[in-house]
Amino acid sequence: MIQRHDDGRVHLGKWEFFIQVLIVLSLIEFAFETLPNLESYWYTFFEVFETVTVLIFTVEYLIRVLFCRPRRVYLFSFMGIVDLVAILPFYLMLGLDLRSLRAFRMLRLFRLLKLARYGTAMKRYHTAFRMIKEELILFGVTALIAVYLASVGIYYFENAAQPEIFTSVFDSLWWAVVTLTTVGYGDSFPVTVGGKLFTSMVVLVGIGIVAIPTGLFASALTKAREEEPK
Amino acid sequence: MIQRHDDGRVHLGKWEFFIQVLIVLSLIEFAFETLPNLESYWYTFFEVFETVTVLIFTVEYLIRVLFCRPRRVYLFSFMGIVDLVAILPFYLMLGLDLRSLRAFRMLRLFRLLKLARYGTAMKRYHTAFRMIKEELILFGVTALIAVYLASVGIYYFENAAQPEIFTSVFDSLWWAVVTLTTVGYGDSFPVTVGGKLFTSMVVLVGIGIVAIPTGLFASALTKAREEEPK
Amino acid sequence: MIQRHDDGRVHLGKWEFFIQVLIVLSLIEFAFETLPNLESYWYTFFEVFETVTVLIFTVEYLIRVLFCRPRRVYLFSFMGIVDLVAILPFYLMLGLDLRSLRAFRMLRLFRLLKLARYGTAMKRYHTAFRMIKEELILFGVTALIAVYLASVGIYYFENAAQPEIFTSVFDSLWWAVVTLTTVGYGDSFPVTVGGKLFTSMVVLVGIGIVAIPTGLFASALTKAREEEPK
Amino acid sequence: MIQRHDDGRVHLGKWEFFIQVLIVLSLIEFAFETLPNLESYWYTFFEVFETVTVLIFTVEYLIRVLFCRPRRVYLFSFMGIVDLVAILPFYLMLGLDLRSLRAFRMLRLFRLLKLARYGTAMKRYHTAFRMIKEELILFGVTALIAVYLASVGIYYFENAAQPEIFTSVFDSLWWAVVTLTTVGYGDSFPVTVGGKLFTSMVVLVGIGIVAIPTGLFASALTKAREEEPK
Repeated sequence: MIQRHDDGRVHLGKWEFFIQVLIVLSLIEFAFETLPNLESYWYTFFEVFETVTVLIFTVEYLIRVLFCRPRRVYLFSFMGIVDLVAILPFYLMLGLDLRSLRAFRMLRLFRLLKLARYGTAMKRYHTAFRMIKEELILFGVTALIAVYLASVGIYYFENAAQPEIFTSVFDSLWWAVVTLTTVGYGDSFPVTVGGKLFTSMVVLVGIGIVAIPTGLFASALTKAREEEPK
Repeated sequence: MIQRHDDGRVHLGKWEFFIQVLIVLSLIEFAFETLPNLESYWYTFFEVFETVTVLIFTVEYLIRVLFCRPRRVYLFSFMGIVDLVAILPFYLMLGLDLRSLRAFRMLRLFRLLKLARYGTAMKRYHTAFRMIKEELILFGVTALIAVYLASVGIYYFENAAQPEIFTSVFDSLWWAVVTLTTVGYGDSFPVTVGGKLFTSMVVLVGIGIVAIPTGLFASALTKAREEEPK
Repeated sequence: MIQRHDDGRVHLGKWEFFIQVLIVLSLIEFAFETLPNLESYWYTFFEVFETVTVLIFTVEYLIRVLFCRPRRVYLFSFMGIVDLVAILPFYLMLGLDLRSLRAFRMLRLFRLLKLARYGTAMKRYHTAFRMIKEELILFGVTALIAVYLASVGIYYFENAAQPEIFTSVFDSLWWAVVTLTTVGYGDSFPVTVGGKLFTSMVVLVGIGIVAIPTGLFASALTKAREEEPK
Repeated sequence: MIQRHDDGRVHLGKWEFFIQVLIVLSLIEFAFETLPNLESYWYTFFEVFETVTVLIFTVEYLIRVLFCRPRRVYLFSFMGIVDLVAILPFYLMLGLDLRSLRAFRMLRLFRLLKLARYGTAMKRYHTAFRMIKEELILFGVTALIAVYLASVGIYYFENAAQPEIFTSVFDSLWWAVVTLTTVGYGDSFPVTVGGKLFTSMVVLVGIGIVAIPTGLFASALTKAREEEPK
């Protein structure tokens, strides 16, 4: 049942799949917990489910630590820390107030990353991203400049007309992010002629913000496929 | 009039085109049926049209079944099941209550898929999608993780400020889907400073959610075109 | 001043540029005309400007017709018809009621297409589009099916909860178009749990609706560039 | 500490990094200044910070001017003008009214462009953009025509039904930009059947407006990568 990979890490055979299912179930349970106005017996069920889940994860964690050779490979690996962080909040909460530490539970979500353990397609993504790393950083910096310039611009155009919505450059930053990513919630938009003209120019940049990373990624993947031995 | 393809399936010559037109007409009629406050003679018309259409489709179905060699090729093919499902609800409704079975009529829409029977371009799509199947699955899983993490994050930021809109993680999931796909209806959006900062980071992932499948598909099609004998 | 191209068409030298400017000016004037509550002298100005513009365009049209060899090349070409249509409404309005024919003025906008007369980049677009014509049609049909299925689905989920917004499948079609193109005005969106789940699945198709034509076009242009003699 | 590049420009060693940080800090401070209802001692702090920052930038500017060989290379370069423009408004404000010149401060934001001084990835962007310059211009002109035609069309459909929102073609232009870029704020959208049908056709163009520049850029980058000596 307990096998070992070439790199010394532990593989739990068919139990791996069971644990993946349990991770997904615990994430669904986490979402259900946030539902308001539930009957009190639900909360009892959630507590029991949570306890059982964490116990299974603890056993899994201990097996992985004890059977890994050399031991520190797993203990200090990214997955090892994520696995620890997924169970730690439960034990920390036992002796402390539950409410204040509840936010730490979010870390439990990192269990989901375990799902990414499989898949050889990841290598191709990795190659492509390494290829365009520099361009992505340059694009990111340029996009940040664009967002900042757009925010300051719209602040000057709209602050007088809509002081409640475009109160400061920070509120304008929110507008800029929502507009340049073409989400456009509709909670803040220009009403003055100048602001609308300015926005019209700005959204053209927004198209570029979607077009450039897409183009980068497409060309990198094309190149990555070409270089692969076939 | 009734010809046979190399694979033994029936081809109805110029009648194929007539049937395609009838499919489209029956879909338009279906949309008209949902209009409220129509004169009663319209409903009579709809009923007559529906009866005639289903009778023609039944004749077509029987011809396809009887003349196909070997018969089971069509009977158990995807198109055969779709064709059956398109006419079955009509006959089932004759002896039963009309209202309760009305929802089954939606299946009639699958007739539209018949339109996809033609077109050699499909092969190129197929090659491209098979090439990136693994990457698409990995992307899908990562996107699901991103949506889940975004939902939990926004729940913690906005639940206190907007308990009616971000009631539970499920309501946050709706927000996450609408935001990450850049649809942005405007029915739910963050109002707190923390929520807005969190959203700003999240929408950058949203750009990736559009950029990555596009890039994958573009590179796969480029590769598929290269490999084609020209 | 009046030169002739190799294909027999007329080239007006530096006057070409002057006419382009006049086209743009007349389009701007057209937009200004729609402004409400203008002083009456503005309307006089618009009328004079319009008359002068149309007269110049008429002279231009006559020169192009008379000096083209063979004459019918221009007369029955796309540009020839556009040029005629741009001036015809003005003369038709002289003897008739102005109001009712006002809508025909929109045709004057086709003058803008003249601007596209130049530019060799058009050939590359043309090559790329011809390359993916079949795939685009198949994609278009699939997208139409997706829009129709989405409309019928959302109608069943939301009609009972929001009878005013999702009144019929036609209203749902409007919702489907606005959602699948990720515009998301916010005038119609699902409120039921089923409708939201259904929409979540539908918007994933919406991502494909943007991703697939982009990928097609990117791969076609890559191919087109490769095949060009360099 | 003061080195010189091959092109004669000044490099300030590790001070370069310090100045970059200062630029970002001054931009953040600029955003904070716009916050309403701040305590008065904050404004004193902003003033002191602004003075110190501009003095450091002035020293930096003078060093760059004095040590550059030949001097005019920097003085009349793009970066030289940006650096001057970043400090000039401060000195101009000393003898004049502060309020009226405040808008000039926006120019200080161009300091951010200094961040783009580094990065060899820029060359690849440059190659790609030069490759598709013609196509981008043709696309831009076509997009402008589409926006204009969409505006006039929606004006005719919606002006009667929503005279306050689609008052003139200019208001329609705002709608067209927001819709074709798929931002979709929701402040203006069609309500008539004709307007909705027209919009449905128009948003298909909107997809092209995102797809075409993305495809252009992706193919250009693929080509640019191929031509690079590896």
